[in-house]
Amino acid sequence: MTVSTNIKTDAARIGQRAEAMLAELGAISAEPHRLVRLFLTPEHRRAADLVAGWMREAGMTVTEDALGTVRGHWRPDLERRFLIGSHIDTVIDAGRYDGPLGVVAGILAVRELTARGVTLPFGIDILAFGDEEGSRFRSTLASSLACTGKFDNATLSDHDRNGVTLADALTAYGKRIEDIPGAAYDREKVAGFLEVHIEQGPVLEAEDLPLGVVTAIIGQSRLRVVVLGAAGHAGTVPMHMRQDALAGAAEILLAIERTALDSQADGMVATVGRIEASPGATNVIPGRVGFSLEFRSANDARRRAAIEQVKEDAQRIAMRRKLEVAFESFYETQTTACDPAMQDLLADVISKQGYAAHRIQSGAGHDAQVMAAFCPSAMMFVRCRGGISHNPEEFASECDMGLAVVALTDFIEAFAKTA
Amino acid sequence: MTVSTNIKTDAARIGQRAEAMLAELGAISAEPHRLVRLFLTPEHRRAADLVAGWMREAGMTVTEDALGTVRGHWRPDLERRFLIGSHIDTVIDAGRYDGPLGVVAGILAVRELTARGVTLPFGIDILAFGDEEGSRFRSTLASSLACTGKFDNATLSDHDRNGVTLADALTAYGKRIEDIPGAAYDREKVAGFLEVHIEQGPVLEAEDLPLGVVTAIIGQSRLRVVVLGAAGHAGTVPMHMRQDALAGAAEILLAIERTALDSQADGMVATVGRIEASPGATNVIPGRVGFSLEFRSANDARRRAAIEQVKEDAQRIAMRRKLEVAFESFYETQTTACDPAMQDLLADVISKQGYAAHRIQSGAGHDAQVMAAFCPSAMMFVRCRGGISHNPEEFASECDMGLAVVALTDFIEAFAKTA
Repeated sequence: MTVSTNIKTDAARIGQRAEAMLAELGAISAEPHRLVRLFLTPEHRRAADLVAGWMREAGMTVTEDALGTVRGHWRPDLERRFLIGSHIDTVIDAGRYDGPLGVVAGILAVRELTARGVTLPFGIDILAFGDEEGSRFRSTLASSLACTGKFDNATLSDHDRNGVTLADALTAYGKRIEDIPGAAYDREKVAGFLEVHIEQGPVLEAEDLPLGVVTAIIGQSRLRVVVLGAAGHAGTVPMHMRQDALAGAAEILLAIERTALDSQADGMVATVGRIEASPGATNVIPGRVGFSLEFRSANDARRRAAIEQVKEDAQRIAMRRKLEVAFESFYETQTTACDPAMQDLLADVISKQGYAAHRIQSGAGHDAQVMAAFCPSAMMFVRCRGGISHNPEEFASECDMGLAVVALTDFIEAFAKTA
Repeated sequence: MTVSTNIKTDAARIGQRAEAMLAELGAISAEPHRLVRLFLTPEHRRAADLVAGWMREAGMTVTEDALGTVRGHWRPDLERRFLIGSHIDTVIDAGRYDGPLGVVAGILAVRELTARGVTLPFGIDILAFGDEEGSRFRSTLASSLACTGKFDNATLSDHDRNGVTLADALTAYGKRIEDIPGAAYDREKVAGFLEVHIEQGPVLEAEDLPLGVVTAIIGQSRLRVVVLGAAGHAGTVPMHMRQDALAGAAEILLAIERTALDSQADGMVATVGRIEASPGATNVIPGRVGFSLEFRSANDARRRAAIEQVKEDAQRIAMRRKLEVAFESFYETQTTACDPAMQDLLADVISKQGYAAHRIQSGAGHDAQVMAAFCPSAMMFVRCRGGISHNPEEFASECDMGLAVVALTDFIEAFAKTA
């Protein structure tokens, strides 16, 4: 099939360029041997400058908003804007595709549009957000929230591990708090938002498909749980006199797992990813255990009900064991549906490449969930090897990334006809 | 003080030699980058041959018993024997002092005795045991047990991680099961046993003393447990596809607690004081969990049975959850008193070096606890840096090791006068 062959030739060329850009961006890290690029750090600054340079090379004018989001403006003379973006911050010990791919894909799509010489009824803004992973401050998605006028000033007092507040970090980055409201787009002038992102799951690989159409970004709740007991000498305190915080935590962990398993109709998942027992010596009974708790489900009401169930179970377990248990919710997002018309359009352009357009939920959170509350928004997933992400092993092929850029370019042309 | 200066000159010379021998022995490992020398492996063979060579150089005739224990015989013509020994097997990722120091000290003491031209009413056997750490098989102390006629044939069916039984391993090492009873010493011909060992605790360092006199070895079992699953993104891996190492560990923790509660007649206690989940992020399913496990009970048999019960429970839990679980025993001791007269004699020779003879209980297990059930036995502890052992950071100074050899030599001369 000639069309498919041409697409693959284009995809290979573009994908190679994408990989080179991602390699250059992936080399910008706070540490020599692993990728760590946190919000409002010197590494963020260097990454932002690199991205701005690419935007200018692609014929865009560049601005930077009060949250440090780099904005590349294609056809800045046009009032109506179509937004494309993702984030350039990373987790600790990250891969180089999660986030940066969406920024690089946007820049390369603008180059393709220019090369095609198309005329559009809107300009395009490529947005490189700086705060999606939430690796530095407890709050997250501050960049896209500011773009939609939903930035919460309360988060300015959140602090990082060194006690630096978000407000201080913004100031040190050369920003002014009073400029944040001005970062918000005028809703009337925004045609839509699209984010390209690696899947971070194994589904597309299992289906042998390069690209997927995201139907919704599922909601999540994150909590911090603390179990308090009494530390004691491992050799002298009899079993029946113990107030072992870790034994109690173990029982609560199993109650959490059971609760998620009981809600499989909703595809609910619950994860305890971090745990610390104090004082943490082989021969000392733990007096305090802290652990993270995360629930995700597309059914927001059932997710909240599950957390209430876990709290009840935990209180019962704690009472029996003479422990105390406290839950602190620190992050909560609702399930966000992607725009149905944009989904269909994405499916069309993917189908024209000769591949089935697989519809898929996103279990991970994305800037698109903030944007979707503001304007018609969609996400395209790119297959990643082994479903691995948040890990140096993270990998997307040049060919798949090239196909994503071609599909994104085709999508913009098709979307323009409907806008 | 002239005597002290002479002792320090002697100690420096002897300690330098000890360090060189320990370095040579410490280079014999199954792995290039860490010290792993397990019972009845090719590494054990090479270490045994090296030790045998040193024994011959020191004027001893050498034999090897049915458990692979290397025995250096000084004055083999004398029927009555004084035994000195320790072990040459190691934990995984070991230091080079724990065990080998006691063997090297014995060999160097024999050289000193020869140099002094002393006449003794007994010969000396230096014993290099091969199974003290219990790093390969569940059982441990098989070597010293065989020397005292207490070897338990049931342990012959214990197997290592590759399914090789102790019986098979002995055969492959060139030994015959039917020779094991012949490894036992005739109690009537044994004058006593002495073991030199690093302290593995911080007491001597805190007291600023090179050597200590062990009063008793208390009974406890400490294990390291590792649960292996598969790390994954907390949002994209469904509950039924997870291999969550922390959920599995939680279930094992409750089985441990239940096992100890079932043995309250013995006043048994079980403690998990440390736990680490890796990679340790809120939004990543833990792929690996490590935790410490400690059992204490005055009833040694019930304590061991409890640990076996926990291991069985853990394997069943791991199998159901598609996890792997491994236990590494790193402390296993029975409560055993050292011989009071030998303690006093040790204290005398240490005092004559100009140092206080600090009396100290041992929390760790040693071959001496097996020997103490057989003949008058004693232990001398050598200060080690930071109390660290079972770790490549393990360290004893040349000076302290030299003082230990001098004290050991002096002890033998003094003991000979009482024998």
